[in-house]
Amino acid sequence: MPPPGLGEFGRIRAFFAPLAGPGGLGLMDDAALVDCPRGHRLVTTVDQAVEGVHFLTADPPDLIAKKLLRRNLSDLAAMGATPRHYLLTTALPTSCNDEWLRRFARGLAEDQQTYAVALIGGDSTSTPGPISLTLTAIGEVAVGAEIRRTGARPGDRIWVSGTIGDAFLGLGVLREDLEFVGIAKGFRDALAARFQLPEPRVALGCRLVGVADAMCDVSDGLIADLGHICDASEVGATIRLKAVPLSPAADAMVAAQRTTRLALATGGDDYELVFAAPSDADTVIGKLAAELGLPITAIGTIEAGKGVRVLDAAGKPVAPTSTGWRHF
Amino acid sequence: MPPPGLGEFGRIRAFFAPLAGPGGLGLMDDAALVDCPRGHRLVTTVDQAVEGVHFLTADPPDLIAKKLLRRNLSDLAAMGATPRHYLLTTALPTSCNDEWLRRFARGLAEDQQTYAVALIGGDSTSTPGPISLTLTAIGEVAVGAEIRRTGARPGDRIWVSGTIGDAFLGLGVLREDLEFVGIAKGFRDALAARFQLPEPRVALGCRLVGVADAMCDVSDGLIADLGHICDASEVGATIRLKAVPLSPAADAMVAAQRTTRLALATGGDDYELVFAAPSDADTVIGKLAAELGLPITAIGTIEAGKGVRVLDAAGKPVAPTSTGWRHF
Repeated sequence: MPPPGLGEFGRIRAFFAPLAGPGGLGLMDDAALVDCPRGHRLVTTVDQAVEGVHFLTADPPDLIAKKLLRRNLSDLAAMGATPRHYLLTTALPTSCNDEWLRRFARGLAEDQQTYAVALIGGDSTSTPGPISLTLTAIGEVAVGAEIRRTGARPGDRIWVSGTIGDAFLGLGVLREDLEFVGIAKGFRDALAARFQLPEPRVALGCRLVGVADAMCDVSDGLIADLGHICDASEVGATIRLKAVPLSPAADAMVAAQRTTRLALATGGDDYELVFAAPSDADTVIGKLAAELGLPITAIGTIEAGKGVRVLDAAGKPVAPTSTGWRHF
Repeated sequence: MPPPGLGEFGRIRAFFAPLAGPGGLGLMDDAALVDCPRGHRLVTTVDQAVEGVHFLTADPPDLIAKKLLRRNLSDLAAMGATPRHYLLTTALPTSCNDEWLRRFARGLAEDQQTYAVALIGGDSTSTPGPISLTLTAIGEVAVGAEIRRTGARPGDRIWVSGTIGDAFLGLGVLREDLEFVGIAKGFRDALAARFQLPEPRVALGCRLVGVADAMCDVSDGLIADLGHICDASEVGATIRLKAVPLSPAADAMVAAQRTTRLALATGGDDYELVFAAPSDADTVIGKLAAELGLPITAIGTIEAGKGVRVLDAAGKPVAPTSTGWRHF
């Protein structure tokens, strides 16, 4: 017997059909239709969120939904693409009732407004295991305008948006790690919020078309993701830890010696953009930062060679023990 | 400590990068690029496979991979689309070692050849739960040529490809259900194979552009999926159970009174195509069946009204107790 509730098709009708964009055909067909404007390409990416790995069981469903969507939008932003559509799959245990799903869908509805995207398809199933979600996002970019990881050149300046390390610290706050004892509540809340609800740099990503030589979003960790650019571009990089932009909360944690700048630069989950641009783009980037109200900070230089060199405050190379999160 | 093995990025390099098509950018970027030919639309669909729900733990990994891909290709076929690309996410417990993944990827490699598709992106994570896989498939269709569920009209003939009910019986064979005792091994093997490895009607789907008024693939069950066409098209349908095409193995099971034609028409997982076409398309459909070496059988008629009426051998309406699989 199915558990009481709306049932599979009832849930689709109640919670997901209202989110459907025109290409989704009311979620009534086997597949969705996606138009691509002339002179453009579609850009696609997919990410998953597994209970106990990417989020905690008690996390608010609307935040789980938003974070999954935003992680994907961050990937599109890193290519310079404008987000348009997404497909969603849910594998839910019976402990996720209709109310859980209603709140989950409300989160999506809010972010659809914020980011001008719409649901066009998906699949729902039961699972004997943890909640497993995947989201495929589709964006558009003019042919040839896409920003890849491969274009960094020696002499390029390395820039990063926003602040780094907050989400890494936020996870510690949510876990009630001991190093947060005595840290101001306002700081703790701000850090937790950055972990639970990243802000993908969608507007910035599109505006860096023609400016950035190479770009990546910061999900594995600043040093690891800059390393991906270096690997793909066959170059090296040097960054100054002192230059890595920190929020007031992260700065307070460093000042109180509860964490290090190196830990913050390896922590991950920031969903900022790290990119390389020729030095003659400094003015444009400065104007962009002012216009978007978003700090964009130069943290180092692309060089011939291989790998990422990290310099401490004294200009001495430090060896990161870990360069980012690995699932295996 | 990570378990011994290739690690997350090592696995991507070893098993998935060799499957990557040109749009996949060597799986080195944040997202994949998809070109859409002028005058065409892209068609996207996503399906998941969860251990213990869609497949059994001991199932061969190459068959798990192929079935997941093929279920998606079946959805594209149902829209009349030609498949091109796919994205894949894997959430794997530590019990899935490199060898499991090697065999999984080999299955994908074989089907990439069979169906002329290529991997362009994905995401891999660990999970404390069962194996969870999702696959997003992308195809192409000329603008306006897409076959939807909405176009069925009273007077249309209802057709179905291949044979119905084999996968449903095949699951019973794999579960060693009692009704298969004494059934010839050749029949049992044929039925199990249909469950483990469906054959999506990719060639037929594309060829029905301009022929079929409405189409759906048979995944929930013949009666349920025909019901989806009726709901979307706001029409009714009558089918004759006697006309539903059966394989020799399924026919033997019915003759031995181990199952019923009604059960086979509600069983699901067939991945055949059910479609409605005006009666003046009979000749074209006959030729298509001959050319593709695939039976296409008329099983009933679209009518004004609502819902699917099912007639038994004596022409009397029967009431299905279940019309298809529900996850909740």
